[in-house]
Amino acid sequence: MKTIKVLGLCGSLRKASTNMGLLRYARAHAPEGMEVAIADLSEVPFFNQDLEKLEERPAAVTRLYNQLEEADALLLACPEYNYSMAPALKNVLDWASRAKDNRLLAGKPVAILGSGGGLGSARAQYHLRQTCVYLDLHPLNKPEIFAKAFGGGFDDKGNPTDESVQTLIRTLLDKLQDWTEMLSTPDE
Amino acid sequence: MKTIKVLGLCGSLRKASTNMGLLRYARAHAPEGMEVAIADLSEVPFFNQDLEKLEERPAAVTRLYNQLEEADALLLACPEYNYSMAPALKNVLDWASRAKDNRLLAGKPVAILGSGGGLGSARAQYHLRQTCVYLDLHPLNKPEIFAKAFGGGFDDKGNPTDESVQTLIRTLLDKLQDWTEMLSTPDE
Amino acid sequence: MKTIKVLGLCGSLRKASTNMGLLRYARAHAPEGMEVAIADLSEVPFFNQDLEKLEERPAAVTRLYNQLEEADALLLACPEYNYSMAPALKNVLDWASRAKDNRLLAGKPVAILGSGGGLGSARAQYHLRQTCVYLDLHPLNKPEIFAKAFGGGFDDKGNPTDESVQTLIRTLLDKLQDWTEMLSTPDE
Amino acid sequence: MKTIKVLGLCGSLRKASTNMGLLRYARAHAPEGMEVAIADLSEVPFFNQDLEKLEERPAAVTRLYNQLEEADALLLACPEYNYSMAPALKNVLDWASRAKDNRLLAGKPVAILGSGGGLGSARAQYHLRQTCVYLDLHPLNKPEIFAKAFGGGFDDKGNPTDESVQTLIRTLLDKLQDWTEMLSTPDE
Repeated sequence: MKTIKVLGLCGSLRKASTNMGLLRYARAHAPEGMEVAIADLSEVPFFNQDLEKLEERPAAVTRLYNQLEEADALLLACPEYNYSMAPALKNVLDWASRAKDNRLLAGKPVAILGSGGGLGSARAQYHLRQTCVYLDLHPLNKPEIFAKAFGGGFDDKGNPTDESVQTLIRTLLDKLQDWTEMLSTPDE
Repeated sequence: MKTIKVLGLCGSLRKASTNMGLLRYARAHAPEGMEVAIADLSEVPFFNQDLEKLEERPAAVTRLYNQLEEADALLLACPEYNYSMAPALKNVLDWASRAKDNRLLAGKPVAILGSGGGLGSARAQYHLRQTCVYLDLHPLNKPEIFAKAFGGGFDDKGNPTDESVQTLIRTLLDKLQDWTEMLSTPDE
Repeated sequence: MKTIKVLGLCGSLRKASTNMGLLRYARAHAPEGMEVAIADLSEVPFFNQDLEKLEERPAAVTRLYNQLEEADALLLACPEYNYSMAPALKNVLDWASRAKDNRLLAGKPVAILGSGGGLGSARAQYHLRQTCVYLDLHPLNKPEIFAKAFGGGFDDKGNPTDESVQTLIRTLLDKLQDWTEMLSTPDE
Repeated sequence: MKTIKVLGLCGSLRKASTNMGLLRYARAHAPEGMEVAIADLSEVPFFNQDLEKLEERPAAVTRLYNQLEEADALLLACPEYNYSMAPALKNVLDWASRAKDNRLLAGKPVAILGSGGGLGSARAQYHLRQTCVYLDLHPLNKPEIFAKAFGGGFDDKGNPTDESVQTLIRTLLDKLQDWTEMLSTPDE
């Protein structure tokens, strides 16, 4: 069985992001048969149809497209800003949807996790799930991961230290592995 | 009675944006006693807590803060990208929420309009309304404006040419005027 | 200043409902100048356009209409069932919307609270807020009340025993009083 | 290959329901290898935890449980009332979720369609999709069916007469067939 390639996308751009910390934990603890890479979104500009028409697409967007082309599945780290998605995550999905008639995304399995205050980014995650409908992505239903960004569950670099969150991430990756196999057609 | 100052924010950055066209129509047809200005969001970077800490906040953000300080009400032009908000609109609200404990926004009346394919940006507008809950903004319930971006309702610069849309915008501004007066405390 | 009449509606029909307990607490602790009544929804059938046409509307619906006619504001106790609203609450709003071109509801101020597992009914409350847009109801933005139904915050009759929840309810009613006054036109 | 059994659930209880008409069309035009049955929800009472405890569960609920047990997939006809789901549809899902630790629903493929005014029940369908997350149901992303209830697309019994809607329903069933096969584990 071939290794499943998972691309992680994080909606927060700050250095000590707890959402990025969740992705790093996933990368370090992927199950056998799965590799997690994390995309660098810091140079991706706001999507703008005018930019799209230019002969030279932003290099960061081209890099992203290549990484998505390679990916069998996505791992989306979804912060919550003001009860909805962080613009940097939504924006990268918007760019991705514009390539090759959405073929970089359509049909791919997705796992969602997030960290935040209050409800742990839950509200943003439901908005993200609505976006997945249009993008024809298939997010796992469970487990949902709503990590508390405050109160001691992360170290000062944003790494998750809470055991229950760590366990949930490993469970999520196991389920993503099964889900990816289920959604892959026999011919692949 | 003093003139009501309305600040228009548009989620699309492209030149021929139909959403920007809706704002321009509003600016040109504001009722007596109301002035509509349109903010320039093209230079506002992605919100990032690290940037916030720098001594020099981005100049475009400072300009935005000053415009919001002056505004009695907001007019939000909300495109729909992939069934949710355009990042550029969400991002400017995120920046605004970080200033002065949200006092640039809290309690302000809001009118929402939008243009898009399919459902005319409706899905994005409901996500925006959820964001307004946290920001303590007070959006008008009616009329909702879901303009069809395609099919001849706009000229090639993005200006609305459909009479029913034009009438709805004028109605929206009239209602925003009443709503702003209702929500202003007697002392103001 | 006249007394503000508030009608409480609860989405749960079971006897020991914690959501009904929140309403009872509100009724017992309304501020001076406010009276809270609680509607009995147990006999209201599913809305069905065919029933509407019958000469004799269900008596429980007529009672509800009369109570809504009298009410200056609504207090909605919103359980969460399977990530959305409890049918009994949604159903009573659906019936109400059909009377007199929605004039029993349009323009009225609303306060929302709820109790549930997990996120304390938050997901259902955001769906309820979307329903309020169409009904032209004006829900308070804050405070939001997401009480934990399990873990000791309620006695065995469903009464809230947690002080922070009790305080939030009293704050909510104070804000509802101000909001109702702000939204009432001078002539009333 | 065994025949796929699909159970249709309709949120509208009135006789000439256009949503029920969509289900009837599906039943009459299911592809080879698929059978569509339609549940009778008219006698299912509001879910209430107190009723659940009684020795004799309502007979209509038991019938529903038996039909769900047999079903390989669900077809949900989702009206929109006041920008969210019709209580009768949500209620039957609530009842179903309570049986056997949700095993009547968990993991099942779902197809959604609906008819309504305005946006053709789209808003309600997104709320339904959120409910599917908790119920661990797997709705198809596409096609979405937002039929216009008014304007001539249905006959006076509620049957769809619009060819584009009819074609969409047949496409939806074809996709549901593929989706059901993809989601069934090899052992089944």
